[in-house]
Amino acid sequence: MQRIVILGGGFGGLYAAKALRRSPVHVTLIDRRNYHLFQPLLYQVATGSLSPGDIAGPLRSILKTSTNLHVLMDEILDIDPERKEVVLTDDRVPYDTLIVSTGTRHHYFGHEEWAANAPGLKSMEQALEVRNRIFNAFEQAEKEHDPEPRKAWLRFVIVGGGPTGVELAGALAEISRKTVREDFRNFDSADAEILLLEGQDRLLPTYPPDLSAKARHALERLGVKVMVETFLKDMSDRCAVIDFGDGPMDIPAHTILWGAGVKASHLGEVLQTNFGAALDNVGRVQVQPDLTIAGHPEVFVIGDLAISPNHVSGVAQVAIQGGQYVAKTIRGRPKGKALRPFRYRDKGNIAVIGRNSAVAQIGKLHLAGWPAWFIWAVVHIAYLIGFDNKLVVMVHWAWSYLTFNRSARLIYLDRGGASPGPPAQ
Amino acid sequence: MQRIVILGGGFGGLYAAKALRRSPVHVTLIDRRNYHLFQPLLYQVATGSLSPGDIAGPLRSILKTSTNLHVLMDEILDIDPERKEVVLTDDRVPYDTLIVSTGTRHHYFGHEEWAANAPGLKSMEQALEVRNRIFNAFEQAEKEHDPEPRKAWLRFVIVGGGPTGVELAGALAEISRKTVREDFRNFDSADAEILLLEGQDRLLPTYPPDLSAKARHALERLGVKVMVETFLKDMSDRCAVIDFGDGPMDIPAHTILWGAGVKASHLGEVLQTNFGAALDNVGRVQVQPDLTIAGHPEVFVIGDLAISPNHVSGVAQVAIQGGQYVAKTIRGRPKGKALRPFRYRDKGNIAVIGRNSAVAQIGKLHLAGWPAWFIWAVVHIAYLIGFDNKLVVMVHWAWSYLTFNRSARLIYLDRGGASPGPPAQ
Repeated sequence: MQRIVILGGGFGGLYAAKALRRSPVHVTLIDRRNYHLFQPLLYQVATGSLSPGDIAGPLRSILKTSTNLHVLMDEILDIDPERKEVVLTDDRVPYDTLIVSTGTRHHYFGHEEWAANAPGLKSMEQALEVRNRIFNAFEQAEKEHDPEPRKAWLRFVIVGGGPTGVELAGALAEISRKTVREDFRNFDSADAEILLLEGQDRLLPTYPPDLSAKARHALERLGVKVMVETFLKDMSDRCAVIDFGDGPMDIPAHTILWGAGVKASHLGEVLQTNFGAALDNVGRVQVQPDLTIAGHPEVFVIGDLAISPNHVSGVAQVAIQGGQYVAKTIRGRPKGKALRPFRYRDKGNIAVIGRNSAVAQIGKLHLAGWPAWFIWAVVHIAYLIGFDNKLVVMVHWAWSYLTFNRSARLIYLDRGGASPGPPAQ
Repeated sequence: MQRIVILGGGFGGLYAAKALRRSPVHVTLIDRRNYHLFQPLLYQVATGSLSPGDIAGPLRSILKTSTNLHVLMDEILDIDPERKEVVLTDDRVPYDTLIVSTGTRHHYFGHEEWAANAPGLKSMEQALEVRNRIFNAFEQAEKEHDPEPRKAWLRFVIVGGGPTGVELAGALAEISRKTVREDFRNFDSADAEILLLEGQDRLLPTYPPDLSAKARHALERLGVKVMVETFLKDMSDRCAVIDFGDGPMDIPAHTILWGAGVKASHLGEVLQTNFGAALDNVGRVQVQPDLTIAGHPEVFVIGDLAISPNHVSGVAQVAIQGGQYVAKTIRGRPKGKALRPFRYRDKGNIAVIGRNSAVAQIGKLHLAGWPAWFIWAVVHIAYLIGFDNKLVVMVHWAWSYLTFNRSARLIYLDRGGASPGPPAQ
């Protein structure tokens, strides 16, 4: 039986595995974590609206009905093209066909040292770090007697005006102006300053310009300071160095959140080195129209890790459809069926700003405000995996909607039991 | 206005604060964390049934309706009896009346070095560590080719046969025999060996003997190996040294969980050193019949940290009633009202083993099996704080009941991004 190995249990890998469920193949799915993460709602864990378990499901549980499927939790170190084996920490897994779907990480534009100070939002661990920092900032501000140091705790800098940055900024604005408004005695949380920095000339640069403008208005109405054509030059644990156009300025801020820039998982480089795959400038793998890499029809790359002239990267639907397409290709091959090239069906883009506020582009239809937000909610519940998760998320959203509360805003102590404070550098 | 300072936001401190809500006093509640933790359900976070946010609520949110109340998140370093001030990391908070309710930690019988290897279940961070280890053990067993090392991954040693140990053992038995049964290909998870060690001659030594026996039967029916009069002598990250009665034996096991032994929070020693309070052998503070310490009517100690001939320690109801009693005392003092001594109303004890299986003692009534389990569920939902939490927990329990699934069984990577493995010593 053909051995399919899938690297990565995100949208691409998961939907490929599900689509191969009843096929006469043996599938091994390998991920360094034991769960599938619903990334679009990660910002809600980061801002205390949802708990991690609400947006994640154990891979073994999701794929339980697949008797031909094997799940392994391990690090993928290398891929051997000669022996056709995936190299794990202590093991090697042979494949006939390989589907690589390990996504992207955050890119700090050459400043990897910034990663410790400015967590991004690509993993559950990062989301919990972001959550810790946001709510700890308010706690530290409450204990701070001097106004200047307190301002630094109440200033939040979000780098990157794409959907991640917009969602974080909107949620932070709601937190400071509503959720924690009555929680503190020594300051008014509505005085918190939220800066959203974007290097291009508008927010949501991949969206139509009118929706970019609506998103900006919505954020500014919430009190966010939106700064386009603005770049972060440097940072420390107490300061962001920002160029607003007149040269770099030191802005005291303890909390910097990263929503800018992605680069490919390290498997991009492995595919280049070992398979001669071509990469783009951030390491994503250039794929053929059938999602294989040139010269290696046995290797597919899907999801955020893949790039081609025919489809965008960084959108969940691309990964989902890619996974389903590859599964269909694999099923058709023994029968000699050749499929048409992969054609991405663009179902649209939605970015949420806050209560009743989102922007959505579905084909030619542009929506904003409540209708967009409602569609956003429905789509995300629909695609969330796990019936209990759907129910629980609906309960949390209904409750938040009624009470403005965010009940998952817990600060975790570090392993030594110490309270979080300015991060050790 | 009288200044009341409450140290600790657990059951004792929280219920004291709530009971002082409309009193003409100024209350400051200080905790090193920003949330109240519903400890009785911590084992469910540890075994993947519930998410942290489901059993915790932000203190500021719970106490929001109290306009006379101030919450601070900080470490309590010392208490100054002369100046009547609580010493925090960077601040000092003055008090007229002090309520100390900081509970207990795990006691490793002089072997503090065991703490890193055998996490207990007193904090959210510990529960997540336990969860990581349990589910990682199965993942490592799946990757292990040799049967002997695999057995060591599939052996779980729980130290301590009180309610915590019993609940963990029951949950682990369900996990291995039901929840993950179909998830692994290289072994049958029902082969997992679960050892529950108790030094006394029966489980649940503080419960009536017939209920101890019923709990033992229920666990053994689930496949747990219950070993009374058995002591843990030593441990490493791959081995538990156990004395079954014939001298210490090395038992290969990677996962050791601690449910034995508590000792007082460090504030017990502070009260002894600075206030002359008497402590018991594990550092708990001996209190007068009115819950004050001898010679200091302005200092109350409640909850797990307090001990007296009149009430037990380590039970949530003692903390709750103690908090309410102290609040009533404080309210009555300006009017010259003296209260009767604190009388603990024993509402009973319940320990759960698994589905449809618990033991309960309510007054003279002893229950086991389904009726006890049902009462356990109702009582815990009733006392859980936060309406959305109640709903969400009911959804999770209903879902688990129907599907045997535990959907919050996520393994977190450490900060370096590495998969958990045998803990570094």
